[in-house]
Amino acid sequence: MSKAAEIANRLAALDTGNMFGNDFFLTWDKTDDEIAAVFAVADALRDLRENNKSCRIFDSGLGISVFRDNSTRTRFSFASACNLLGLDVRDLDEGKSQIAHGETVRETANMVSYMADVIGIRDDMYIGCGHTYQKTVSDAVHDGYSSGVLEQCPTLVNLQCDIDHPTQAMADMLHVIHEFGGVENLKGKKVAMTWAYSPSYGKPLSVPQGVIGLFTRFGMDVVLAHPEGYDVMDDCIEVARRNARASGGSFSISSSMDEAFRDADIVYPKSWAPFAAMEKRTKLYQAGDLEGIKALEKELLAQNATHMDWECTEEKMAITKAGKALYLHCLPADISGVSCESGEVASSVFDRYRVPLYREASFKPYIIAAMIFLAKVKEPAGTIRALEAANRPRKLF
Amino acid sequence: MSKAAEIANRLAALDTGNMFGNDFFLTWDKTDDEIAAVFAVADALRDLRENNKSCRIFDSGLGISVFRDNSTRTRFSFASACNLLGLDVRDLDEGKSQIAHGETVRETANMVSYMADVIGIRDDMYIGCGHTYQKTVSDAVHDGYSSGVLEQCPTLVNLQCDIDHPTQAMADMLHVIHEFGGVENLKGKKVAMTWAYSPSYGKPLSVPQGVIGLFTRFGMDVVLAHPEGYDVMDDCIEVARRNARASGGSFSISSSMDEAFRDADIVYPKSWAPFAAMEKRTKLYQAGDLEGIKALEKELLAQNATHMDWECTEEKMAITKAGKALYLHCLPADISGVSCESGEVASSVFDRYRVPLYREASFKPYIIAAMIFLAKVKEPAGTIRALEAANRPRKLF
Amino acid sequence: MSKAAEIANRLAALDTGNMFGNDFFLTWDKTDDEIAAVFAVADALRDLRENNKSCRIFDSGLGISVFRDNSTRTRFSFASACNLLGLDVRDLDEGKSQIAHGETVRETANMVSYMADVIGIRDDMYIGCGHTYQKTVSDAVHDGYSSGVLEQCPTLVNLQCDIDHPTQAMADMLHVIHEFGGVENLKGKKVAMTWAYSPSYGKPLSVPQGVIGLFTRFGMDVVLAHPEGYDVMDDCIEVARRNARASGGSFSISSSMDEAFRDADIVYPKSWAPFAAMEKRTKLYQAGDLEGIKALEKELLAQNATHMDWECTEEKMAITKAGKALYLHCLPADISGVSCESGEVASSVFDRYRVPLYREASFKPYIIAAMIFLAKVKEPAGTIRALEAANRPRKLF
Repeated sequence: MSKAAEIANRLAALDTGNMFGNDFFLTWDKTDDEIAAVFAVADALRDLRENNKSCRIFDSGLGISVFRDNSTRTRFSFASACNLLGLDVRDLDEGKSQIAHGETVRETANMVSYMADVIGIRDDMYIGCGHTYQKTVSDAVHDGYSSGVLEQCPTLVNLQCDIDHPTQAMADMLHVIHEFGGVENLKGKKVAMTWAYSPSYGKPLSVPQGVIGLFTRFGMDVVLAHPEGYDVMDDCIEVARRNARASGGSFSISSSMDEAFRDADIVYPKSWAPFAAMEKRTKLYQAGDLEGIKALEKELLAQNATHMDWECTEEKMAITKAGKALYLHCLPADISGVSCESGEVASSVFDRYRVPLYREASFKPYIIAAMIFLAKVKEPAGTIRALEAANRPRKLF
Repeated sequence: MSKAAEIANRLAALDTGNMFGNDFFLTWDKTDDEIAAVFAVADALRDLRENNKSCRIFDSGLGISVFRDNSTRTRFSFASACNLLGLDVRDLDEGKSQIAHGETVRETANMVSYMADVIGIRDDMYIGCGHTYQKTVSDAVHDGYSSGVLEQCPTLVNLQCDIDHPTQAMADMLHVIHEFGGVENLKGKKVAMTWAYSPSYGKPLSVPQGVIGLFTRFGMDVVLAHPEGYDVMDDCIEVARRNARASGGSFSISSSMDEAFRDADIVYPKSWAPFAAMEKRTKLYQAGDLEGIKALEKELLAQNATHMDWECTEEKMAITKAGKALYLHCLPADISGVSCESGEVASSVFDRYRVPLYREASFKPYIIAAMIFLAKVKEPAGTIRALEAANRPRKLF
Repeated sequence: MSKAAEIANRLAALDTGNMFGNDFFLTWDKTDDEIAAVFAVADALRDLRENNKSCRIFDSGLGISVFRDNSTRTRFSFASACNLLGLDVRDLDEGKSQIAHGETVRETANMVSYMADVIGIRDDMYIGCGHTYQKTVSDAVHDGYSSGVLEQCPTLVNLQCDIDHPTQAMADMLHVIHEFGGVENLKGKKVAMTWAYSPSYGKPLSVPQGVIGLFTRFGMDVVLAHPEGYDVMDDCIEVARRNARASGGSFSISSSMDEAFRDADIVYPKSWAPFAAMEKRTKLYQAGDLEGIKALEKELLAQNATHMDWECTEEKMAITKAGKALYLHCLPADISGVSCESGEVASSVFDRYRVPLYREASFKPYIIAAMIFLAKVKEPAGTIRALEAANRPRKLF
């Protein structure tokens, strides 16, 4: 049996009924079956494409992308996912189109969606805003659809918000699953999601939040480590605790990078800004207090600089399980001596993991495509089988 | 019989021979049959898509868009129309590509058109320029085609010029036709195309000009109302007069919003700049007189501010036919208390018409697609029938 | 037999095995068979499209474009080529995505390539950088492919670098082949690749370098003419000399435009910057010496201005073979009295050659498509035959 066919069989056993016609905001909104289904569909689509079988489920249609921050990786991942499924991507560039909040969001969301099957949004800059904005867009198009304005309801895919970064965390996890030879091998593995020093400030919290919110579902021992003052959102801590209890793993918080790294199977050292500081920054922006923002930036950089020892060095890697923990990063990393003088990771460590890091990132287009697929296709297992049976070549000659 | 098949029968009776290979600049260039054909094809394509039947008439090919002003709605309408028909949209961004006038226009038009089936242009900023620019582009590619440089002649679709806004006015009218249950029910209906107050200035005249130039063709009583000094182009007034005479309707100009609204079946309150001021502004720009432009802007805003009572309030709506006139707007509207302190329309009126307004806008992609279709397909009725018979699914699963 | 079938027969006799899976950097990296194959495939694809036969060899997939300089013509040529073959173009806009050198180039190249079949790069601004950058990108994706990160290896197409402009020179040459009725008629023809005056400075050298590097392969007498100080890269001169020897033609350098034009069958008068000045400029940029750059610019413009007699006038055209040399230009040209006061070519000359110039440019999309085709298709002749036999219409109705 082909790999895709095998996956289709697994997929058929999962309850994915609620995903049809629905959005993807946060991984913890989704059941274990639904999370498993995303991984299954991602693997199946990849297998089909690797065997030159077309994954198009659309003859035409649009994918709308909204990036409220610069982005190469996510932009191309979304474009790749849409292209794989047969959709054409149009960017809603705010510079070009002056989208704003409230009434305008509702209106614009409908105006761009007449032929749209999916809307992907990245909005991670301001605490309390990103997720809310995505919800507003989703509500607007659901209203538009139910009142007959739109012929199809575009599904919303969260390409990063202030709370979660589901496409990243799920790509990271699918990489882990592949590296460890299956989800059944993850129980009891130790994961260190740790802060790391960066000479820049204001990096989003959605990566660590997304990772602890997802990785705790697989019976692993997840340690979140950071210097004092670099707390993440309370709600996400609560999610991680609940998940760990339910999955038979554990979740703990440490203030020592060494403690987190010791005997870890997986390390994810990555900089982020303190939640409290990001909240303050959001308020300063809303108040238009540019002086305050400058002062805060200076303060935060100084605070960061007192923790330059939080770097993923060879010494730190040596204390992980057999000195060979799987090193994860969402990229781009601040590599000491390469992209900055002193940063998140030593260049020799980064170099050793370059290929696995690129492979980690390679899952993202498939994760996004799987999210769209499950929102658009009523019988996911049947459709995977149909795509395989159809055997339409992706490259024709 | 399916709706599409029924429409195809109506379409077969219309003389559309001159549309094949031709451009769409102004609605009043087109015969009644041709206007009816655009509506018919738009309805047919919509019916096909709503029934998940592919409307692709191209396997590959490009649609070129040129936006000499920011635009979300029109940009996405054009992209949707092209995608529906199987074309990929490429934006000719003047920031990126330094298009200029004269020789350069002729050259660039050909350089981007080697695979282009359609060029959509929005150029509404300067009086005497937009339409002229579109004609120059069209002449250039017709020359390119007839001299064998281009393998196909891209059809030009006017996405808004200084004179007309045919895709908007026709989307508005198709909405009206649907709301009134057919074009045969429009005779004798009263339409109020009125100026409304806006705190911004320089809004294009092509919307009111396009509306009076088109709506007068259907035997309706069209009133154009505006404060003194807000005249539109003389030529468009002439067109409206001629149309009204021919269609058995009427066209009049009023300086009272109340007079226009009284017993109106349809109201279209919308701000625009005085034609004379726009002409002056164009000359100031051509002369590079930035001081003059600033002074003119100040003057125009002050002039606007003396007419803040031109607002579509509940009181005004109450005097329309049974208090229930169909409220039209091309969006975005200046909504009092929402997008501005005081604007074109009261928020309670806007709220009540939000869904119909979104539906009004939803016709635009189909109108644009119909214009392209009729320029590209030799036997429109036959092709509609063929698309229905082919029954290729738009969404494959 | 159809033209495409005839071309397929010629193509079958050429050794193109090394093109499969390979990049296209410089024409002089390629064998005569490979160059002939690009021309053959370009002609075949054009014949197919002109006969409304789809040239799609992809059902889905991406073409990535990187333009490190503004560009309309090349941008649309690349988009047209990709669309013709079934690929969707995504621009890697550096403003949007902050691509940089070294580590970042390697990483970004992989991050955007998960679904990419081709990467087209234009990077012609700085001496010693463009070609190097393209090589770095190519190395990165070849590594990504061989280590299993990428499922397909995108082929790199040089859309202009600091050394060569192969898509331009080959489009120019294919135009020449068509104008002279076949490559077999080129032996002994005289080509004048000459400098011409322009009021702007810093025009890239890759056009003259590309032309002398390619045109010398066909047994023609190629003269490179320029004022003292406007030398091109030594390596390219060496390539031209070697080619001329091998092809039985000649290559010479002259400091007289008249000498070059006299009895020429083909003239290509076009401005460029001195190589030494471009090298100096690159160093000033690298040192961030803005004052130095300004001073250099002033100096170069003054130097240019001493050679305003290097203009392609009617008088100059009159001394060419029968006064009727084929005039070539990569466009846009600096036309005296049109786009500038005094420039590269008299407007009456330009006007007379406008249609041929547009036709010359029309070969570029096909040249690019042919380069992609030959890198992606294992049996080019067989695939051309298969596309013809499949007879899938490009325009469906």
